Amino acid sequence: MCGIVGYVGKAEAVPVLLDGLRRLEYRGYDSAGVATLNGHGIEVRKSVGRIAELARVIGESPVHGRIGISHTRWATHGGVTNENAHPHYDQSGKLVLVHNGVIENYQTLREQLEERGHVFKSQTDTEVLAHLIGEAFERNGDISQAGLVTAVREALRQVIGTYGIGVLHSALPGVLVGARRGSPLVVGIGKGEHFLASDVSAIVAHTREAVYLNDYEIVALREDGFDISTLAGSGVSFQVSKVEFSAEDVDKGTYPHYMLKEIYEQPNSVRDAMRGRLSPEEATAKLGGLNMTNADLRSVERIILCGCGTAFHAAMVGEYLIESLAHIPVECEFASELRYRNLPTDRDTLVFVISQSGETADTLAALRESQRKGHRTLGICNSVGSTIARESDGGVYMHAGPEIGVAATKSFTSQLTIMTLLATLLGRIRYLSYAEGLEILANLERLPALVSQTLELDAQVAAIAKKYAKAPNFLFMGRQANYPIALEGALKLKEISYIAASGYPSAELKHGVIALVNEVTPSVFIAPRDAVFEKNVSNIEEVKARKGPVIAIGTEGNDHLDKVADEVIRIPQSPDYITPILASIPLQLLAYHIAAELGCDVDKPRNLAKSVTVE
Amino acid sequence: MCGIVGYVGKAEAVPVLLDGLRRLEYRGYDSAGVATLNGHGIEVRKSVGRIAELARVIGESPVHGRIGISHTRWATHGGVTNENAHPHYDQSGKLVLVHNGVIENYQTLREQLEERGHVFKSQTDTEVLAHLIGEAFERNGDISQAGLVTAVREALRQVIGTYGIGVLHSALPGVLVGARRGSPLVVGIGKGEHFLASDVSAIVAHTREAVYLNDYEIVALREDGFDISTLAGSGVSFQVSKVEFSAEDVDKGTYPHYMLKEIYEQPNSVRDAMRGRLSPEEATAKLGGLNMTNADLRSVERIILCGCGTAFHAAMVGEYLIESLAHIPVECEFASELRYRNLPTDRDTLVFVISQSGETADTLAALRESQRKGHRTLGICNSVGSTIARESDGGVYMHAGPEIGVAATKSFTSQLTIMTLLATLLGRIRYLSYAEGLEILANLERLPALVSQTLELDAQVAAIAKKYAKAPNFLFMGRQANYPIALEGALKLKEISYIAASGYPSAELKHGVIALVNEVTPSVFIAPRDAVFEKNVSNIEEVKARKGPVIAIGTEGNDHLDKVADEVIRIPQSPDYITPILASIPLQLLAYHIAAELGCDVDKPRNLAKSVTVE
Repeated sequence: MCGIVGYVGKAEAVPVLLDGLRRLEYRGYDSAGVATLNGHGIEVRKSVGRIAELARVIGESPVHGRIGISHTRWATHGGVTNENAHPHYDQSGKLVLVHNGVIENYQTLREQLEERGHVFKSQTDTEVLAHLIGEAFERNGDISQAGLVTAVREALRQVIGTYGIGVLHSALPGVLVGARRGSPLVVGIGKGEHFLASDVSAIVAHTREAVYLNDYEIVALREDGFDISTLAGSGVSFQVSKVEFSAEDVDKGTYPHYMLKEIYEQPNSVRDAMRGRLSPEEATAKLGGLNMTNADLRSVERIILCGCGTAFHAAMVGEYLIESLAHIPVECEFASELRYRNLPTDRDTLVFVISQSGETADTLAALRESQRKGHRTLGICNSVGSTIARESDGGVYMHAGPEIGVAATKSFTSQLTIMTLLATLLGRIRYLSYAEGLEILANLERLPALVSQTLELDAQVAAIAKKYAKAPNFLFMGRQANYPIALEGALKLKEISYIAASGYPSAELKHGVIALVNEVTPSVFIAPRDAVFEKNVSNIEEVKARKGPVIAIGTEGNDHLDKVADEVIRIPQSPDYITPILASIPLQLLAYHIAAELGCDVDKPRNLAKSVTVE
Repeated sequence: MCGIVGYVGKAEAVPVLLDGLRRLEYRGYDSAGVATLNGHGIEVRKSVGRIAELARVIGESPVHGRIGISHTRWATHGGVTNENAHPHYDQSGKLVLVHNGVIENYQTLREQLEERGHVFKSQTDTEVLAHLIGEAFERNGDISQAGLVTAVREALRQVIGTYGIGVLHSALPGVLVGARRGSPLVVGIGKGEHFLASDVSAIVAHTREAVYLNDYEIVALREDGFDISTLAGSGVSFQVSKVEFSAEDVDKGTYPHYMLKEIYEQPNSVRDAMRGRLSPEEATAKLGGLNMTNADLRSVERIILCGCGTAFHAAMVGEYLIESLAHIPVECEFASELRYRNLPTDRDTLVFVISQSGETADTLAALRESQRKGHRTLGICNSVGSTIARESDGGVYMHAGPEIGVAATKSFTSQLTIMTLLATLLGRIRYLSYAEGLEILANLERLPALVSQTLELDAQVAAIAKKYAKAPNFLFMGRQANYPIALEGALKLKEISYIAASGYPSAELKHGVIALVNEVTPSVFIAPRDAVFEKNVSNIEEVKARKGPVIAIGTEGNDHLDKVADEVIRIPQSPDYITPILASIPLQLLAYHIAAELGCDVDKPRNLAKSVTVE
């Protein structure tokens, strides 16, 4: 959440910055701003609202310069106002700063600064950073790149919290300084120009050579080079990474929204999640990135799966899959809860943290806490080079390509696919025979085709969405591995249509939720032909007895649902470990079409942001 | 859900039946009906709606007799209509039957009966039972008590599903037959009269001597006696139990609703949950009903806590308490999910099933499945003599007294209290010192007083309820052991006010739910002064930055919340293992006052029923 783009080079900064902000807009879009240096001091433009609004402001009052910083905001402290938008000035008015993250001791720092005569213009935690750095710079009197870096170091040592920052000072019109702790920053290397961004997708149109900063590192960028050092003051070695995707990958092409594009990419993204990981010779899945031998994996006695939001739902499906295929007890934990708990675990506990961005603050903290307790901790991420990918003891990449829609779609089905691979691998080590392994592999090889076939339901789902779009709230129900799919279906709808949807295990209905059922509240049941099909039908009948409309996700060739449900959406017949992936797709489409029908901004829903890098 | 009352004796049956139905009305109130025998064949009266409506119908068209059966319905199969209300006739019109439970193969049985010329008048699963029994009775031609019992036996052998039934036949005007599988039935013993009921509270005004039937048992009641036999045909021995509570205990006294009465009973009910279970000499809790030695308890390696609805939320709190005080890994499972799963468990796994009524169908099935797998399975129930209490390998009674309000209140805090006792007992065996045990006991002894003190918040909560009652939906947030309290707070509100409320771990807000935040959607935060207080405050600020109203449950003497929340409700300072109990109370009151403000029927909410005895 929040996005940073910085530039220093030979070109005009503002077009580069605005283009980058547009590509980061899915990370936060409460308000935005830019600052440049051009020999006439600092020039700042801000606006509340989208990047388009900022572009309009700049169109009316242009701003020039070959160096600049910019920011798109997702508010944490202080309301959404022009004053609270970044960049923020220091007391002297000669320094500007943009910031992602949260400064936890800002109240104390602000009071101390106010005692020293500083005057604050915003309610943000960020403004104290600008004041602290500016004060240190003036106090030291060293007007050089090294002087600004030293001032940043001194200021950040006083700070408790997380930050990714970009800083300019009018006395140093060729230097852009960045620093990070807990919020990602990446340096882009161009020809005679350099970029600073909170996410590589902001700059991939200009360069595909990137250096991912580590926590407690400071970078000083110039037109002709850059220097990285630590907060403690020592130099560091770094690695230049090649960015795997191109600018086209982060365009939405002919689709009206990124979300729809990403829903339709799923035949490919589930294939990419499996690519090179199915071994028919050995009748098992192979996940080399775990960095664990089969003997290591055999000694695992318990698994903890950890994530937030959509990734937590993937973890819940993973629990079912691993417990049923490998018989290893699995516990799912919200990352935000795990990090503050003292979970009883023994030596042979394996921890997986799941995060599309690899930067989710709570998930990263859970990873670190788990490593602190001596557990082998593995990451399941999409973003290559992300902090979780780098800090975990191994893991599995999703290879889903950039996901821009704030509501996760293809990353979810990729996570589910990886959970199936993991359960297969662990199962084959313990309980599954060669023949059983081969059968799972054969079914997984059909998966991309089944996903394509499921996408053909789009028109039917769109018609159902139109019919029920005005409902005040929705209930989603499923059993076993489809219960988390119900939760995910409800989450999609909440996220993009703002309808108060909730998910439940089907049988929990009668224990309270059924009170919400009436003629205008649709119940969505995931009721494929499986061992609990009749139980789901009983629950559907309880809803129908109370006149609630029922939308059922059933299985092709199963007509029984026609007698009880108002609408039946039929996904292809598939084994229990594949059905959750297929069942997700009509629910993604349902949420998408309802939101579109209601005129909601599908890709940039109210209040939300992609990649939650604050607690 | 659903209620049965039957009578045979010297008095007029209808007043006894109507009084009993009124006391069972909280178990289902879609529709109701009575049938009597009086020498002129069978007389039936039915009505859609409440018992009061049935009484009005009978007032207009009286019905007499000294033997009768009656029923109050919570619809499972077929809508809420007069035709679907019980009692149901057989094909001959000489037999009537009332039924709780679900007949799973009713569709097949009905088709077979239709082929034999039977004509059905309702859409219920129940009607096939009446037809099957009537058909067997006519075929056998044995017009005696034994003949009717044999017909019931033959019919029930064809049935898959659950039932508690009452049967009359016009040829046997002195005999009332009952039978059960999966749905409770109790025989009440009077002087020259006998009663049959699905719950003892229906008949406690007439007798306090009761025989609880077991599954697969059939009873034949006469004025002068009764005979119990099994479905297989053998005789059985039985025990006469003394009912612990009186008719006054199931009256609401001066309170406008049972729910409010039960909320106010909590200082006593938490005391009763602890009575005789605190041992300061040994600095631990004692739970003799577990039937386990300390050595047995020490060998426990894993615990599974299982329940539905409110009991599941108590299980979630139990997980936190046991894991933090005793460091034993705990897994919470929805009963409805556990019963169909093959959870990986080892030899030293202990299972607890939690159910206020002790009759919850899914929880009972989970108990049986767990015993089938060889696990020691213990019950935590309120109803003495309930099926779960009798079938479990031991357990803990809540001693909360009858809970009539459909929305569970005092049973929840009793469950939490028992969870604290259990965590203390297990903790003292493993990690807690004598001094730590003593400190917990001292705090538990203060608990009833702290609950009383918390109830003084009633007027403040009522004022807040009035202010926010028109909100379209509510969000409830908490962290750690207060996350399940947020879920429970949301459930209360859903159940009785029909507002689409949802609960979340506070940090999950940003992962989707915050999209629902706007000026009219209140967020209720449970934010006591604890280790995660600042984290909760950050989440509150994120909501405030998006203009969402915030109601915070804080701690007495902590003013910090005043700066960030719109409303602050302060509960007494208490240790982490007691706070969830206290935090529950303002949330119960909030739901109660909002529902009352909206004019909802608090004790008999729409679509719901107490004690869910179907799947």
